Order: sequence, then structure tokens, then C-alpha cells
Amino acid sequence: MKKWLLTAAVAASFGSVADEGMWQPYQLPAMADELKAKGLEISADSISKLTEFPMNAVISLGGCTASFVSPKGLVVTNHHCAYGSIQYNSTADNNLLKDGFLAKSFKDELPAAPGSRVYVTSEVTNVTDNVKFGLESKTGNDFYKGIEKQEKALVAECEKEAGYRCNVYSFHGGLEYYLIKQMEIRDVRLVYNPAGSVGKYGGDIDNWMWPRHTGDFSFYRAYVNKDGQPADYSEDNVPYEPKSFLKVSAKGVQNGDFVMVTGYPGRTNRYRTSAEVENQFEWNYPYSKELRETIIDIIKETAPAGSEDRIKYESTLAGLANYAKNFTSMIEFYGKSTMLQDRQAREQALADWIAANSERSAKYGKTLAELTDLVKQGEAHQERKLITGYMGYSSMMSSAERLYRLAHERELPDMQREPGYQDRDMKRFTSGLERIDKRFAPKVEKAIVFDLLKRYAKLAKSERLAAMDKVFGINGKANDAAILARLDEMYAKTSLNDKATRLGWMKKSVADFKASNDPFIQYAVAMFDTDMAAEKKAKERAGKLMKVRPQYMDAIIAYNREQGKPVYADANSSLRVSVGHVKGYSPEDGLIAEPFTRLEGILAKDTSVDPFDAPKKQLELIKQKQYGDYYMKEIGSVPVNFLSTLDTTGGNSGSPTLNGRAELVGLLFDGVYESIIGDWGYDPQTNRSIQVDSRYMLWVMKYLDNADNLLEEMEIVR
Amino acid sequence: MKKWLLTAAVAASFGSVADEGMWQPYQLPAMADELKAKGLEISADSISKLTEFPMNAVISLGGCTASFVSPKGLVVTNHHCAYGSIQYNSTADNNLLKDGFLAKSFKDELPAAPGSRVYVTSEVTNVTDNVKFGLESKTGNDFYKGIEKQEKALVAECEKEAGYRCNVYSFHGGLEYYLIKQMEIRDVRLVYNPAGSVGKYGGDIDNWMWPRHTGDFSFYRAYVNKDGQPADYSEDNVPYEPKSFLKVSAKGVQNGDFVMVTGYPGRTNRYRTSAEVENQFEWNYPYSKELRETIIDIIKETAPAGSEDRIKYESTLAGLANYAKNFTSMIEFYGKSTMLQDRQAREQALADWIAANSERSAKYGKTLAELTDLVKQGEAHQERKLITGYMGYSSMMSSAERLYRLAHERELPDMQREPGYQDRDMKRFTSGLERIDKRFAPKVEKAIVFDLLKRYAKLAKSERLAAMDKVFGINGKANDAAILARLDEMYAKTSLNDKATRLGWMKKSVADFKASNDPFIQYAVAMFDTDMAAEKKAKERAGKLMKVRPQYMDAIIAYNREQGKPVYADANSSLRVSVGHVKGYSPEDGLIAEPFTRLEGILAKDTSVDPFDAPKKQLELIKQKQYGDYYMKEIGSVPVNFLSTLDTTGGNSGSPTLNGRAELVGLLFDGVYESIIGDWGYDPQTNRSIQVDSRYMLWVMKYLDNADNLLEEMEIVR
Repeated sequence: MKKWLLTAAVAASFGSVADEGMWQPYQLPAMADELKAKGLEISADSISKLTEFPMNAVISLGGCTASFVSPKGLVVTNHHCAYGSIQYNSTADNNLLKDGFLAKSFKDELPAAPGSRVYVTSEVTNVTDNVKFGLESKTGNDFYKGIEKQEKALVAECEKEAGYRCNVYSFHGGLEYYLIKQMEIRDVRLVYNPAGSVGKYGGDIDNWMWPRHTGDFSFYRAYVNKDGQPADYSEDNVPYEPKSFLKVSAKGVQNGDFVMVTGYPGRTNRYRTSAEVENQFEWNYPYSKELRETIIDIIKETAPAGSEDRIKYESTLAGLANYAKNFTSMIEFYGKSTMLQDRQAREQALADWIAANSERSAKYGKTLAELTDLVKQGEAHQERKLITGYMGYSSMMSSAERLYRLAHERELPDMQREPGYQDRDMKRFTSGLERIDKRFAPKVEKAIVFDLLKRYAKLAKSERLAAMDKVFGINGKANDAAILARLDEMYAKTSLNDKATRLGWMKKSVADFKASNDPFIQYAVAMFDTDMAAEKKAKERAGKLMKVRPQYMDAIIAYNREQGKPVYADANSSLRVSVGHVKGYSPEDGLIAEPFTRLEGILAKDTSVDPFDAPKKQLELIKQKQYGDYYMKEIGSVPVNFLSTLDTTGGNSGSPTLNGRAELVGLLFDGVYESIIGDWGYDPQTNRSIQVDSRYMLWVMKYLDNADNLLEEMEIVR
Repeated sequence: MKKWLLTAAVAASFGSVADEGMWQPYQLPAMADELKAKGLEISADSISKLTEFPMNAVISLGGCTASFVSPKGLVVTNHHCAYGSIQYNSTADNNLLKDGFLAKSFKDELPAAPGSRVYVTSEVTNVTDNVKFGLESKTGNDFYKGIEKQEKALVAECEKEAGYRCNVYSFHGGLEYYLIKQMEIRDVRLVYNPAGSVGKYGGDIDNWMWPRHTGDFSFYRAYVNKDGQPADYSEDNVPYEPKSFLKVSAKGVQNGDFVMVTGYPGRTNRYRTSAEVENQFEWNYPYSKELRETIIDIIKETAPAGSEDRIKYESTLAGLANYAKNFTSMIEFYGKSTMLQDRQAREQALADWIAANSERSAKYGKTLAELTDLVKQGEAHQERKLITGYMGYSSMMSSAERLYRLAHERELPDMQREPGYQDRDMKRFTSGLERIDKRFAPKVEKAIVFDLLKRYAKLAKSERLAAMDKVFGINGKANDAAILARLDEMYAKTSLNDKATRLGWMKKSVADFKASNDPFIQYAVAMFDTDMAAEKKAKERAGKLMKVRPQYMDAIIAYNREQGKPVYADANSSLRVSVGHVKGYSPEDGLIAEPFTRLEGILAKDTSVDPFDAPKKQLELIKQKQYGDYYMKEIGSVPVNFLSTLDTTGGNSGSPTLNGRAELVGLLFDGVYESIIGDWGYDPQTNRSIQVDSRYMLWVMKYLDNADNLLEEMEIVR
């Protein structure tokens, strides 16, 4: 298996002209000539070795990427990736989100939000054969459970080494499986973040947009115990000393320069079927967008700007707004595109190719029909599933349900438990419960749940769940007032809003839950059988998909190989490398987006009203043309952000953007509006990633925030 | 006087690097070298001669500019300039605005809206000495009346030649006066307009915007009687044969090419004082913008899209929206600019310059203070004046007032009457009254007046007018319901909504008006003394301004001359020439506006929903890459619109944009959003005019609308 994927990669290296592709590091040596031609100066081999420079300097924060930039475990990532920790350390009186924060010495560094982690990838192993061993004859739930069991065994074996976290990642929908081993650093501290009016400049208005002027960077530090091992927070811990770290370039890049990005892209859907595309763009995105916009409005109404409650919900709001805008773009560009027709044509071409050869017909003849059938099955009750899914925004409902599930799972031996409920998950489980205190306000949450329940109550009886109907007294008649009264009662009576009480439930038995009179615990007990039945049904379907999707991908890959198209797996939060160039684009006929923005653009945008309210000192520095060492002659100023053709997606946030010598020249933090739909297909004309320029980062640190201690700690090169 | 202005122009020719300036044709020969260096191929002398090619091909429509493009009086102008005539000939069933119109032969051409005129400028004479003769000692109202009297005498003398219309234009606020003689063609016919989804593509959303894809062009034809003289519409009239006409270029321009525009720019304010700037931007624009937006909302509510009433108000809506957006931009860019501080600094520099020299001190020492004092006087009661001014949107109120004024004026000998009420004005007066039928719906107008009266009623008593209070029963207490009841009664009872009745009042006496029981006639009678007193006061101030402003301009011009700055008069609706280049710009840091847009931009913008609903046939032609003879290699398509540095403003609409050989390469129709504030100051970085490319015009005519008859009639050159 491994061999022909390599072959495919080689084929791709000749066929691909664009900078498309999120490559698994092991694929890079086969592309060495192409990478060198594009501008890579270090060897392609070196990027494929995870425990050597530069790859061992690139780390995951879980959901974001980051990198080591000093021998003392200094970590740079995006401001929006450190947002939760900045928020966690902020109060209305000492608002680090607003004012920024700089630890002038190690002892001033602040604990990051509970659950913050630094993951250093140390090993990636192809375990496809191990995972699938002996399961050829299994199907549905049995296949799903069989895969899960073998994954768990691999993980358990791997995690025997203390301080490591291991996961099995599926590639190409289950065609291949890789075991990824990461050192898990648990003591993470906030070192420095610029003021919100730098780090979040432009806010939601500029999010996904170009031109951009956001200083989206912040610094953490990883701490370990005196033996160099991961440990819980302790004053005795010491800075982690990584095997290598990235040098930061004060010279930066120019238009057309080679760049590459290493990071943990979350999810792309470039190989989804037309049926999946249609349902996603014509049903799911429009519905989800509306739901998100409604929840945003509810939060803004119930937690007015400037209130303590609002601080608790800023992070939730940012996430909601981010994806509401993302979905808006998806819908807009889908409407303008021929994506659906293209997929249908691609499927037809694939079908023709399969039909043209008896061996292929025998192997793949029924695959697409089977896959489409499973996809359609997944659409059953989707409105209800989406609404109840958004009830995850209720900390009370979701923590009660997770706690009750834990009580059930704890009755099983650890290895038989559902992933997420094993002993290895309990630290994360605990910090999730703790974090609620900083992110929950009953008034706000109740208003959100009320809106979702009103939507739910309008569904036909056949779509609703009897257990849920019973809890909230829903009977198909208009009774919003009764639902609200029920919610009022539940939020008034619950003690799950108390951290100690929540944590206490982690040790209780199923019988304890059944005996409880806490309304949210009662809700969890009432829903349990229904939830379990739904989960079993979903796993039955998932198991079938895990057999059919790999067949489909196998066919697609073989077909693409013949067409000379690049073959790389959809993003799945595992470490990838993208290569590309600094390059502008044309967002619409008659307009050209330049590859760099300038300090002066901040002056022009500034209204002194959030989110365009740069610090006065910064505006003064710009007026005085205080460019210092970071002046870029070609643009007549200090570059703030820059565009590249790099193929990235959510999860790449915070990724170091590197030049050909693997020096840090920027931090990836966003893509342009036109490229959001890139998750479903890369368009070389419009697919652009947005980076903070390293020169701007250094300029802010030096002139605005006087972060001399960090500038000295880092290795800055020209 | 003339001599030093010429000198100033020459000085300017060395000092000015930018393409700033709206030049009087007589100024051009002195700039010949500079014009040649810029790219003018024909002689600068020829552009200064109004009765020779190309200037005699450039005509005014009153408010818009146009040009002859065939020996048979074919006239090309903007779609939005012919809008009133297209609307006039449209009904819900036969909607030329929506569907477009093409007369395949002369006999199919349709009469333009009543009052439509073609003015051909034939002579411009400096009459400064005549106008001011013997008035040195006069001031205030006496000076105003004296100037007016001498202007009227000059006009009467000039208009002795039948078929001509003459006007005296004041330059530099009264520093100079010019008598302008124009042949007035009264039989104007609609020949061709593309569909609204071409001619108004992008509508209000794209108005003032770039990138732009608007086919803003239409064709009229001028008709005269068999003797070649201007005449009222008659079937016996024949096409006017102009002395010359413009050739239309199918080759067009390229980036950087020289262009010039000849036209009738309406009004600029580049020499206004800081006090005037401050009041205009900080009070007038914000208030007017809000008023316009309110009236737009009222029209949209009371005349729903698609209704007969809406057709009547489309033109009004377009005008309201146009300036609401204009004012929005003014306010936005004023907020970002240092315009007020710059003016204050300029005034201080001027004051210093004056103070530094005893001769200048004696001449100008008190000028700015006197001017500022008069400006401040003009701000008295400005809120009430603005509100009652907007009552001009009431056809009933304004026609009643104008008719009653006419009854008074008719008691005087013609030469003593107020301008606008002389015999020479009666045709225009009549067509104004006729046009009301096509632009008036009682329900809509009543709602607008009601809103204005509610605003008026909220003013302090000292700001209100006793006569108006009496008519509408306004007493400082909340009585909106009573105002509305009064309006209901007036609109129910009036017969001024009948055209014949309105026209009948043109012959009635003051006594007839006083005896009328028509509520709007009664309103006009009730307001008359108040209005006359206000007018007298305004003229007193105007007369003083007409003495002080020229002194101020005299000082400014002398000062600018020393600084090497261009000296041209503010726009005043008289014929001007601007010269510049095809050039893009940077609307904001990180973005470049390209100088040309492409056919493909229409495909990309199109949503099939108004205003982005190009005809299906057009979209098909573009998909098929049907470029024909109009392909522009540099952009890989047919250019749709292009940008130039030409210095223009409202009134330039429809102006022919010419290349160095005076061939028509485009039609000017708009400026970019960033340049709206250019009326107050030209910024070479952002001041850009928008033209329809002649290639797009020809492409639409040939491939979309099959206007072969017109393509054959015109002289098309490469």
C-alpha cells in the first residue's frame, strides 16, 4: 500500500502545476526535485523526519498549530489560538484581552486555560494492516467495533510510555490508518499577547478578508518537571528544552518567494460525493448559518458588550461568528460555482472508467451506489440531529449527559470503554468540566436552549424524540411558555453550575444518577437509552462507510493517478506540509489583491472604534514612519500581513510559514473569503492563505510592546 | 483680467504635475505644450474654438452632457441621462426601462420627456465689465438686483436671435462673468437604449463603485424644422445636421493613454472657506443624508416594486439614492481626512501672506473676516430651510407656489421679472407642469410631506414660520394626527393633480388665486409674503457675497499663482475641458483597482436578481467568448468600463471621453467612491472618473441589440 502511494506522489509531482496539496511528511522525499525547483533550500528528506529540524519544532495545541522559537520552550502561535487562555486570565478589571500582556520574566508567566496542551509529534507509523487484521468478513457495527478495539490496543501499547499521547488517524476514509505518537506537555503558560486591538485588529469584520492588518500572534511557554518529563502545573517545573527550534526571519519574504507551512489542518472534503456536496451546501450550510447567526444575536442581547457575562462568551461568540461567515462564503461561492455539476461529471467519468474494464467493474462496480445509499441514510432526521447537536452549546445539558455516560462506561474495563471515557481521557474530561465556570452564564445559555427547543418543538412527531418531548412537555401544540417555564425551573434548581458538584459526579454510580433530583441529571438519565440507540445505529452506518469509502477512494486514487492528478489525503488533523509561493490574486474582475499590506493601512482603516481601534501609540509610531529594521523597500513600509498560495484549512492556524531555509517568515492565521470553499476543492486562482509577516510581529514586539526579553531569547536572522 | 488669468494658466502648466483642473476652453492654447506632452494630437487651439470640431460636437442636455455622433443629429449620452425620457415612454405593459428600446428607423423614434433639450454652445463672451458696470458703489440687495438687471439685458439682447438660449455664468464667485449663447433644440427623440439590466447594471449598489460593469449609454436624436431652425415637436421636423460630429473608436484606449473630456460639470467647491467646509460636512451632509434615506424608505414602502406608482418614482428614487450615497462618501472621507485643518492652514497662510505686504493688507485685509461673517449669517435657521427645501419634492406644494409667484411676476414688465418667470422661461415652466403627471402619486407624496412636516413641527417656535404653522395647525404640541388629517384633506380636495387645471393657472391673476378654495393654492397664497421676505433677505446677503467672494478669490488666485498652483474656476455648469490618463488606483492598502473591467466580470457578478440580472442572451454571448472586433489583448476580453484621472463632477455625465485625436473612446458616467469628496479637493492618488468603454458600447449594439442601423450611421474608426 505504502509503495503505490509513493508512486502516486511521484506521478503527482509531474502532473501538478498548482500549489495544491497537504502532504504527509513521508511523501516529500519523492517530490524532492519539484520542491527544490520551487525554492526549497534544505533537503526534502529533512522535512520528512519528524524528530529532526525543522519538523520537531512544529507542535500541535489541539485545534491549532504552533512552533518552538527558543531553546527554552518558547512557543509562538496565533492570538486567536491563545484566546481561551488570554480570556481565562482576564477580568473586567484586568482585561488582558483588551490591554495585552507581557511577562517580563519566567515567574510572571500565567497558567494557560485548563486543558491547554502542547503536543510534540515524535512518531508516525502506518498501522493499516494491524488495524484491519482479521476484520475482512465483518461489517456494520461489528466492523466499527473491531476497528475501534484494535485502535485502542495500539494506543494503549503506545501510551505505555509516560507523558505521551497516541492516536490512530484514518486516511482516505479508512483506506489507511496511521498511529501518531505525541509527547503531551501539560504545563503551558501564557508569556505574551499584544493588545486585542492589535491581535484581533479588524475583528469579525475583517475575518476571512483581505486586505488584512491583524497582528494575530501570541506566545506560550511549555514547562516540564525537573526530569524533563510532562507534568501537571507546578511552581517547580522548568521550561521545556526542545531538540530544535525555528529561527525567526527579520528579512522576511518578497512577492513570488517560496514558502511552506507545516501544521495540523483539520478537515477537508475534496473527495466527497456529489450527493454529499448537494446536501451539505443546499441544506446543512444554510441551516447551520442561520442557527449560528441566531445564537450570536441571543448572546449579544443577553450578555451586553462590556458585561462580565460577555467576557465569558467572547470565545464562544468568536467561534460562532467565524463559522457563520465561513458558511456564508461557502453558500455564496457554491452558488457561483459549478461544483455540483463538476462532481457529478467526475463521478460519471469515474463510473465510465470503471465500466470500461472488467477487473475494475468487479472491484468497484457497486461502490458509488453503495456509498450514496449510506450517505442518504445519514440524512434521515438531519434537522432534528442538527438542532439537538447545537444543544452541545448548553454546558448544563452536555456535561450532565457526558457525566452520566461516564458512570455507565466506568462499569466496563478500561479497554472496553467508549473513546473519550477511558482513563487516559480523564484529565481532559476534568479540565472540560472546570472550564465551564469561565464560559457559562445561566441567563445566556437558557436563552440559547429555549430557541433550540422552540425549533425542535415545531418538528413533526415522527421526527421528535419521545424522551425529549417528555422532559420538556412538548406535545406538538404551541406551548413555548411552558417550555420556558420548564427551563427556568431547571436552571434555578440545578447545582451542576457549581464546579465541585460537577467534578463530584465523575465518581458517582449509575444508581446515584437515577436517584438524583437535579433536573439536568434527570434529563441525562431520561435521554440515555434514546441516545444509545441512536449511537448504535450511527455506528452501524459508520462501520459500513468504513468499508465502502476506502473502496471508493481506492478507485478515485487509481483513476486520479491515471490522470496525473495529485494524490494526497483529505486533512484529518494530522501533521502535513504544504508548499507554495507569496502571491496576490484577483478577488473580482477589475481588482487585484496585492500580496502585502502596510503599516499605513492601519492608519487608513482606523476609526478608533472596535475592531478598528489600534493603540494610540501604534498610530503615532506609524505617523512617525518608525519602520526601524523591518522596512521592506518594495512596498515602502513594514509589511503587516501577506498572501500565499499555501493549501491550508482550519487547524493550520498558528502554523509557522517557513522560507526555503525553514526560517519562520510568518504565522498562518486565515484564508481569504474566496478560498473558504477551498475545503471542497483547491482553486489556484483564488486559494490564498493569510500570514502575519514576521517583520510585523518583530516590529510590534520591539516598538509597541518593548518585548525585549523575548526578542533576545529568540534567534533572529536576516 | 483675461490676461492675468492666462498668465496664471501658463504658470499652472509648469507647476501642476497631476491631472487636476476643469479648464475653460479659452485657457487651453496657453497650455499647448503641456497638452502635447501629455498626448494631445490635435492642436490645443482647435479645442478652444467652440464652433469648430471637436467642441461643436459636444452639447448640453441641461444637467448632463452629450455629443453628436452622426451627420444626422444622432446624440449619445448616458442611460441615466436619458432615464427620464425612457421612463416617460414606459408603462407597466411596455416597459422600455426594463426591456430596452431600439428605433429601427427614424419614424419609430419616440418623443423625449417634455422639456428635453439639446443645447449647442455657439459663443462664450467675457462680459465682466458689462455686468458690473456702474455698480461699484452698490451693495447688498441693490448690488444683487443691479447685476441681475444687467445680466437680463445681456440675455435679452443675445436671445433676439430665434432658437437660441443665453445665460450669464459667474466664475470665481463673481470675479468674472461670461455670456454663453446656445442653440436650443426642442424636438428631441429617444432612439435607442439598452435594457435596464445593461444600462443600469449594478444599480444603486454599484453606483460610485469600482469595479464596474455598467453599459450606461443611450441615444437621442435632435430634430429641427425644415429650415434647420429649432422648433417644437412636429412630424414634419427633420434630423438636425450638426456642423461636425465625433467619430467613435473601435480601437479604444490602453492603460496610460491620454484622454480628455469635454462637458458641463455642475459645481465644485474647491475654494470654499473652512467655515463653509465645517458646516457642510458636519451639519448639512449628515442631515441631508438622513433626510434622503428617509424619503427613499417612504417611497419604497408606499410605492412597492413593480407598481405603476413605482415607475413614476424610479427617477426620483435614483436621484435621492445617488446623493444619499454621495453624502455618505463625503462624510466618510471627510472623517478620514484632514480637510478642515488643511483649509484652516491654507487660510492662515493666505492671511500671513496678505499681512506681509501693506498693499495686499489694504486690499484684502478684512476680506476673510467679512466672508466668514456672511457665511455664518447664512447658517441662521438652516434646519428649517433644509426641511422646507425638501418640500420641493412635493409637486403640489411647489407647483402651487411657482404658479402663484408667476401670477405676481406677470404683473411686471418682462425684463423686471424674476429669472425663471420671464417669457423666455415659459416653455420650460409649462413642461415642468406637464411632467408632473408622470412623476406624481398622491399617496407617496403625502407620506413624504407628512414626514417633513413632523420634523418641522418639532422645531422651536423661533425657528418656525407663523404662516406655515397656521396652514397645518402646528402649535408646538404633539399633533401628528392633526397634520396628517390636514394633508389627507388637502390631497383629497386639490385639483392641481389634473394637468389641464395646473396649466390653466398659468393665466390666472393674483386675485383668482386669492379667491381659490384649492387647498394647495391657498397654501401658496398663505406662504407668499413670508417667502418673499425670506427671498429678499437672502438676496441682500447674496449681494454682499457677490462683492466679498470675488475679493477673496482674487487674493487666493494671486496667492496660488505665487505657489505655482493651477488656477481654474470652480465648476458652474459651463463648458469645460479636463485632460488626464487612463489609470487605476489603490482604493485601500493591499488592493489595486485595475483600469479596465472585462465582460467576464458580468458573469461573475450576475445573480439573476436586479440589479445584477444581465440579459440571458448577454450571459450566453460572454460564455461563448463572443468578443468579435472589440477584443482587447492586454486584458484578454472586451473592456466594459475604464478608469481615468480626469477631473470631473456631476453634470459631466454623458460627456464624451476623447483620445488625442478627439475620437470618442468612452462615455464618462461616474466617479469612484473615494473621489466623491473630490468636489472639495482633487487628490491625484484617488480621483478617478469611470467611463463606459466605446468597445463595450459597440459590442452591446452589435451582438446584443443588433443596432445595425446605428452602427452604420456612425463613423467607426480603428
